[in-house]
Amino acid sequence: MNLYAPAKQNHSFFEKHRGIIDRAIEAVHKREFYSQYPEMPSPQVYGETAEADQKKLFEGQLAGKFDRLKQSHDTWMKSDEQSPYTQQKLGISYPAFGDVSKYITAAQSAWSDWKKTDAQTRAGILTESLERMKGSFYEVAFSTMHTTGQSYMMSFQASGPHAADRALEAIALGYQEQTRFPNKLTWEKPAGKVTLKLEKFFTTVPKGLALAIGCGTFPIWNTLPGLYASLVTGNPVIVKPHPMAIYPIAIMVTLIQEVLMESGFSPDLVMLAPDNEEKLITKELAENPAVKIIDFTGSSSFGRYIESLPGKITFTEMAGVNSIIIDSAVNLAEMAKNVAFSLSLYSGQMCTAPQNFYIPRTGIQVSGQHVPYEEVQKAITGAVEDLAAHPKAGPAVLGAIQSDMTHKRVGEAMTLGGKVLLESRSINNPEFPNIRSASPVLIEIPSTATEIFEREMFGPIVFIIPTADTRESLQLASDIARKHGAITCGAYTVDGTTMELIANVMAEAGTPVAFNLTGNIYVNQNAGFSDFHVTGGNPAGNASLTDPEFVVKRFTRVQAKVQS
Amino acid sequence: MNLYAPAKQNHSFFEKHRGIIDRAIEAVHKREFYSQYPEMPSPQVYGETAEADQKKLFEGQLAGKFDRLKQSHDTWMKSDEQSPYTQQKLGISYPAFGDVSKYITAAQSAWSDWKKTDAQTRAGILTESLERMKGSFYEVAFSTMHTTGQSYMMSFQASGPHAADRALEAIALGYQEQTRFPNKLTWEKPAGKVTLKLEKFFTTVPKGLALAIGCGTFPIWNTLPGLYASLVTGNPVIVKPHPMAIYPIAIMVTLIQEVLMESGFSPDLVMLAPDNEEKLITKELAENPAVKIIDFTGSSSFGRYIESLPGKITFTEMAGVNSIIIDSAVNLAEMAKNVAFSLSLYSGQMCTAPQNFYIPRTGIQVSGQHVPYEEVQKAITGAVEDLAAHPKAGPAVLGAIQSDMTHKRVGEAMTLGGKVLLESRSINNPEFPNIRSASPVLIEIPSTATEIFEREMFGPIVFIIPTADTRESLQLASDIARKHGAITCGAYTVDGTTMELIANVMAEAGTPVAFNLTGNIYVNQNAGFSDFHVTGGNPAGNASLTDPEFVVKRFTRVQAKVQS
Repeated sequence: MNLYAPAKQNHSFFEKHRGIIDRAIEAVHKREFYSQYPEMPSPQVYGETAEADQKKLFEGQLAGKFDRLKQSHDTWMKSDEQSPYTQQKLGISYPAFGDVSKYITAAQSAWSDWKKTDAQTRAGILTESLERMKGSFYEVAFSTMHTTGQSYMMSFQASGPHAADRALEAIALGYQEQTRFPNKLTWEKPAGKVTLKLEKFFTTVPKGLALAIGCGTFPIWNTLPGLYASLVTGNPVIVKPHPMAIYPIAIMVTLIQEVLMESGFSPDLVMLAPDNEEKLITKELAENPAVKIIDFTGSSSFGRYIESLPGKITFTEMAGVNSIIIDSAVNLAEMAKNVAFSLSLYSGQMCTAPQNFYIPRTGIQVSGQHVPYEEVQKAITGAVEDLAAHPKAGPAVLGAIQSDMTHKRVGEAMTLGGKVLLESRSINNPEFPNIRSASPVLIEIPSTATEIFEREMFGPIVFIIPTADTRESLQLASDIARKHGAITCGAYTVDGTTMELIANVMAEAGTPVAFNLTGNIYVNQNAGFSDFHVTGGNPAGNASLTDPEFVVKRFTRVQAKVQS
Repeated sequence: MNLYAPAKQNHSFFEKHRGIIDRAIEAVHKREFYSQYPEMPSPQVYGETAEADQKKLFEGQLAGKFDRLKQSHDTWMKSDEQSPYTQQKLGISYPAFGDVSKYITAAQSAWSDWKKTDAQTRAGILTESLERMKGSFYEVAFSTMHTTGQSYMMSFQASGPHAADRALEAIALGYQEQTRFPNKLTWEKPAGKVTLKLEKFFTTVPKGLALAIGCGTFPIWNTLPGLYASLVTGNPVIVKPHPMAIYPIAIMVTLIQEVLMESGFSPDLVMLAPDNEEKLITKELAENPAVKIIDFTGSSSFGRYIESLPGKITFTEMAGVNSIIIDSAVNLAEMAKNVAFSLSLYSGQMCTAPQNFYIPRTGIQVSGQHVPYEEVQKAITGAVEDLAAHPKAGPAVLGAIQSDMTHKRVGEAMTLGGKVLLESRSINNPEFPNIRSASPVLIEIPSTATEIFEREMFGPIVFIIPTADTRESLQLASDIARKHGAITCGAYTVDGTTMELIANVMAEAGTPVAFNLTGNIYVNQNAGFSDFHVTGGNPAGNASLTDPEFVVKRFTRVQAKVQS
């Protein structure tokens, strides 16, 4: 007997992918290097004609109806999406409901079977959707590139394999937590001469309708973890993409809907709810009492609003002010090159990009030699300039600027105060002459002018802040992290005690630190299965990808006992 | 190298108790019967003279200063505590601060070492405090009895071994979650011809000052889980007991402070913050921005206020309306006896006590025979009457009424409407002639009068609700659980399909169900290590004892990486 027997089961995909799921659970717990989906565009892995085929698919999709979704709808919505590379509208229409409450009703109606299936069924179906995603990595890349302004390479990596790894991580931990305790057992308690005996049954009950709110810069990478975490724990999900980045996640929603249907579940379990400037619908969805779970990536002001909604379980990733603390180094040029790349990558539009550079104004030790502050500053400024001017690397690393607002902010940065060390300029991109671009602006700001540098200046805006010493640098970096949030911190020091100090003070401010990075490894990068992304310990966000909290809050455990 | 090396370690108690902790982690995950602390008063286990010695200690404490606490204080507070058995004040004074913010300052100052020690040190110290608690079980029982009105036996069990088991559960899971992932590793990523290599370090950072708000009926059982969960994850705790039930938890706080001091930590890490009617301090503490975590047991209205405080992580257990659904049975008398005991135990002042009994008005099947509704109702009413009138069992099971308010509520229940089936009366307790007591009142209410029975009537007030059929019974029980919360549900049915239906419908309302209990096992009981207590899935509370969520929300995970 099992009192909580699943009303519907379909283990075929679970049996097929059990190895992947088991390996992912192991990887999450070992936190060693692991990747289920190779991160480079690779004809050998992803198919010889895949890139060309999917480029054609992408081009064919432009200016047309996105008619692959399987969900209910009663109208078509013309999106505002525009390519930062061509500054042309994509002109795509998506299926939609005119009345927002219809998404709620449809997702709720689809829920009953999914709620009452088991973790195996859910994990299998979701893993299958990721396996199929491999067949769409290139289209996902092209659509990411032409909505977010990421470079082609980053679009492939971040929206493709890296996002899929992060989604698999959520499936793995969600599956593991749901199966962590026995689902039935015989409980025998000795009580004097007799033994009391109960049959006990345990089940998990999903919390309810989830809303996944996407952002304009990482429409896949930042949406998949919450989406998959909610689904694997049994909740239906309404995906509300950023109005300027719908296409990439529409592909993913389609894939999940297809596997759901093939497995006998309603495709409305995951619904795309697109909107445009004419009628923004996020608040109406978020405030609906049926919505119990909200995953949000975006601005701090909107994030605080989301967190304040009563009766919701929220997972947020918002803005942060990331720092680089320079105390001492082995090789100045190597350090400069590394941080220049970090701050330039996708024109500083990563939540992990560094903004504030703290350098002692008395200079630093480099391999035992004293190097004055000006020289350190010039090494960084020079490396940024070189990278931006490089005919191949420049456009490839910087990409384009996602929004007009960010572009405007860069222009205005020069008037913030301080001393402009490097002016922003447009990038020469022969492939896309109409690109919206801006190379990084570097500004020197006195360490007393915290009102300027304690704010997140989203985009390629960097502050170089000369400090009294590393102690002041650390104080500023940790204070700002505590007050305004931070997702990453980079530090360079050859001194073990200083390293320990920085690591521990920043840890108390909920901020991870990457030390002495040079070469092809950057502070911006958080590896799936190994690095927790965001700690939840400062105002940059209340959730961490993917720690146990990220999945266990999405369901409750209920039990029954029967005396026999 | 370990970047996050603990600033202070003391593993002596961890080494001593490693076996207990490992066994507890295993028990939590197996959910079989397990108890570290035998539940009966036992001279063999707890000492031949323990009961007499501790009775003397208890009597000597009355009307005096409770001067065993090791914490900072600047005044003494005379408590309002009063024995429900004698209706005399206990007259005890507790060390206190006149200015509430001083608790905050003291606990925060004590934090630094505890924050930076390791999970082993914390788990060892806390387990030692429980081992020492065994030497105070009788004093804890006497003080519980004479503050809450629980019977002596329940006072011993609930405040002693059962509470210690629940605390150990929190230590075990808290320790396990903190050590779940490696704290350091070498991360190697193949990248073409080279291999990228990072040393990675992980640590946990406690969320901050915790506040544990106790209730008047279970001052130990309901306080220890949150208190131990916060401490094991590195947070200091201010214990704000119910003004009428300070003494029992003061003993526990003393024990923890003693072990902390012996281990080189500040006793102010856990502080008793008592209050009385003259100046209630809970809100001032709860609203202080330094307080990050709040554990609360008590009324729904105060609990909703706690849950609504911005920027706090809250764990609540509030009121619920528990049901018994009677569909069919094997033995009418056995069933009646069992539920009569359940509703009478501690005069219905358990959060797990049943309030609403749903019985089909067309009668039920008992071992294949039709039994009319009236007969079922009379069997229950009669069993309650017999138990209350029993010279030995009556006083021992019913105990006393904790508060005047509850006592008044029982008196007023007769005027609620419906048909009074059994009137409440005082209990004859020869040992305590001045006892504040009330036997259960049973009232028949039509199933349409939901406004009467959908409220929690805390205390010995029971509604018998004749329904159209079990389907209506289940509908009412689950609707009320969803709307107003429920912590338990009992059901009697010999039909497997009905059993499944009840289990699943109640599960969706976040309520566990106990089926067909007879003999010495009751719906009120939730076993440590096996039963989750409260699901968090309905308005009766947002937390579950002790699931992973109960511990993981109390800390964050932070990491550092160093390129080598």
